Amino acid sequence: MTGSHPTTETLFPYEQLLSFTIAIFRKIGCSEKDARTAAVALLSADLRGVDSHGVARLVGYIRLQEAGRANTKPDIRVIHETPSTAVVDGDSGLGLVVAPFAMQVAIEKARNVGTGWVSVQNSNHFGIAGYHALRAVEEDMIGIAMTNASALVAPTFSIERLLGTNPICVAVPAGEEPPFVADLATTTAANGKLEILQRKGEAAPSGWIQDKDGHPSIDPHALKTGGALLPLGGDRDHGSHKGYALGAVVDILSAVLSGANYGPWVPPFPAYIPMPTGMPGKGIGHFFGAMRIDAFRPSAEFKQHMDNWIRRFRSATPAPGHEKVLIPGDPEREMEKVRLREGIPLLPVVVEDLKNLAAKLEVSFPIGPSAPF
Amino acid sequence: MTGSHPTTETLFPYEQLLSFTIAIFRKIGCSEKDARTAAVALLSADLRGVDSHGVARLVGYIRLQEAGRANTKPDIRVIHETPSTAVVDGDSGLGLVVAPFAMQVAIEKARNVGTGWVSVQNSNHFGIAGYHALRAVEEDMIGIAMTNASALVAPTFSIERLLGTNPICVAVPAGEEPPFVADLATTTAANGKLEILQRKGEAAPSGWIQDKDGHPSIDPHALKTGGALLPLGGDRDHGSHKGYALGAVVDILSAVLSGANYGPWVPPFPAYIPMPTGMPGKGIGHFFGAMRIDAFRPSAEFKQHMDNWIRRFRSATPAPGHEKVLIPGDPEREMEKVRLREGIPLLPVVVEDLKNLAAKLEVSFPIGPSAPF
Repeated sequence: MTGSHPTTETLFPYEQLLSFTIAIFRKIGCSEKDARTAAVALLSADLRGVDSHGVARLVGYIRLQEAGRANTKPDIRVIHETPSTAVVDGDSGLGLVVAPFAMQVAIEKARNVGTGWVSVQNSNHFGIAGYHALRAVEEDMIGIAMTNASALVAPTFSIERLLGTNPICVAVPAGEEPPFVADLATTTAANGKLEILQRKGEAAPSGWIQDKDGHPSIDPHALKTGGALLPLGGDRDHGSHKGYALGAVVDILSAVLSGANYGPWVPPFPAYIPMPTGMPGKGIGHFFGAMRIDAFRPSAEFKQHMDNWIRRFRSATPAPGHEKVLIPGDPEREMEKVRLREGIPLLPVVVEDLKNLAAKLEVSFPIGPSAPF
Repeated sequence: MTGSHPTTETLFPYEQLLSFTIAIFRKIGCSEKDARTAAVALLSADLRGVDSHGVARLVGYIRLQEAGRANTKPDIRVIHETPSTAVVDGDSGLGLVVAPFAMQVAIEKARNVGTGWVSVQNSNHFGIAGYHALRAVEEDMIGIAMTNASALVAPTFSIERLLGTNPICVAVPAGEEPPFVADLATTTAANGKLEILQRKGEAAPSGWIQDKDGHPSIDPHALKTGGALLPLGGDRDHGSHKGYALGAVVDILSAVLSGANYGPWVPPFPAYIPMPTGMPGKGIGHFFGAMRIDAFRPSAEFKQHMDNWIRRFRSATPAPGHEKVLIPGDPEREMEKVRLREGIPLLPVVVEDLKNLAAKLEVSFPIGPSAPF
């Protein structure tokens, strides 16, 4: 912790931040329904502990709208389809609104023919993949969500940044146990974790980043001087070609399949960064899947075996120094319980941003309890 | 290289090994068609340079049949289906025969409704995932193949081995460029790479394995003394929870969805290892997908953008000490060209195994040119 960046967080009740976020989205032109859809999707990141993708980014979304890059009255529509597939044109809408639309199309197709697969063009950032994949779980389906993003990641052996952190989520319903939720950026570490190290002034572990010349680096600021995040694995000896391949699959399914931009041409989230030149598609791309459980096996039977799977893994003998083996989704679910009960902690810099936004758009900003987190 | 394990390889023409392998599968009871299907699938590993999964394993497959665990006259059938999904019962057949059947079902469903998704129970090891995924590419589809396998991998924080190396392949057609083929075990390193280090008497890189107590190890023999392979990422700081999550997804889609065995209950490949107790399903499980390109976007348009994607990545500025950035699938395709031309190199120990097998089953063994590889 440094004096110049105070890190004492203030807790805000979820409902307060939700009302505030809805009001902000209303002010920039979203319908009541879209504003709520976007706010719920955005704040799911704060609830689940992915602070880098939650309300801290609200100002960024507003700037996209101000820059003419996010359309708050989009005509989102299916532009091509078969019984099990569709391509959705997001009409430059907020990804937080486009993605729920597309996932709903996937779910309806799954109802009809067993599975639904939707590739999306002309969208913007959609928040966290986990939120969208979990919509299918509510319908007794396996949910899949992925998105490409602007290039911060160097493929194995590359100096250039050509891929985004390109997350994949697969969410699977269980019976008495909570759902299994694998939600992962295809990099060794997410950008949000680098930001935490930057604030703390700490070095990054090996395998997270490289410098502008393609050499391994532990400087968490290396991205600002031409460095890059590394694909999951870190280097070739540790399987970075696999992380690169997974990130590439996300890019292809989200964008080459839909007609969105891919690779180095994906539009950046910060509105002040110039758009890439020679863009081959429209906006950023997502990919969604929904698979009805009973399209494979009776749902009750499947869930009984998922419970068995989860319990066997959870009861595995832990390695020294670790309390227990976790199931993918456990940490985020625990966090959600705590934050719904105790509130969402926001850093002073985030609170300041939101207050300024509130003043500019003439929306009242909630005052959270002053208890430090 | 050590004196006790000679490593000078002998080259065998592909066609010779193919005829031999077909003859062996015929001798254990496979139909002419199944024997050819199995042999082509098995040898695709040798052609693509995945030596651990090719003809070196033929003896292992025969032992499974001898142990009554592989049925050479299986009644492979669809036991449940919707327009876009199916579950296939492999009737304990060779995975090398069951998997092509299941992928064909996926392809036919994709022809009808855009995509096809097939989960398989009651199968055996299917060779390499890449071979099966590439069948869809021939039909102008994106192909997906994955399989679970017996437990060699410890989830993050676990001492126990609960997952197989659980590979995933996604193969995507391009236009003038060759297909994109991401084919990866969800571990830091495949078991075959450990075997190479064992033969050479060299230490393993960090992050590949842990010892029986859950501590990091560089001993390539650690698996034989209760150690485990590690999920892609290696340790928690380097994202092993992501590799664990991916391996878990493969296990769930392949086995919990189909009714096969999962986690620590997956039957081992070596026939001499006792079967796990309390098995919850049938055999091992696979999962296949086929997505018609034109179910999303006109095929020619898609391929033009795939070519653009591939060329942009291939022409990226390489990091110091590296010649160029590779596209997933490049190394295996290069290897295939070389080996079709020059032959498949087999280690003396593999040749010896095959000669013994040939003698036992009264099949003549081909004599390769004696040129060392």
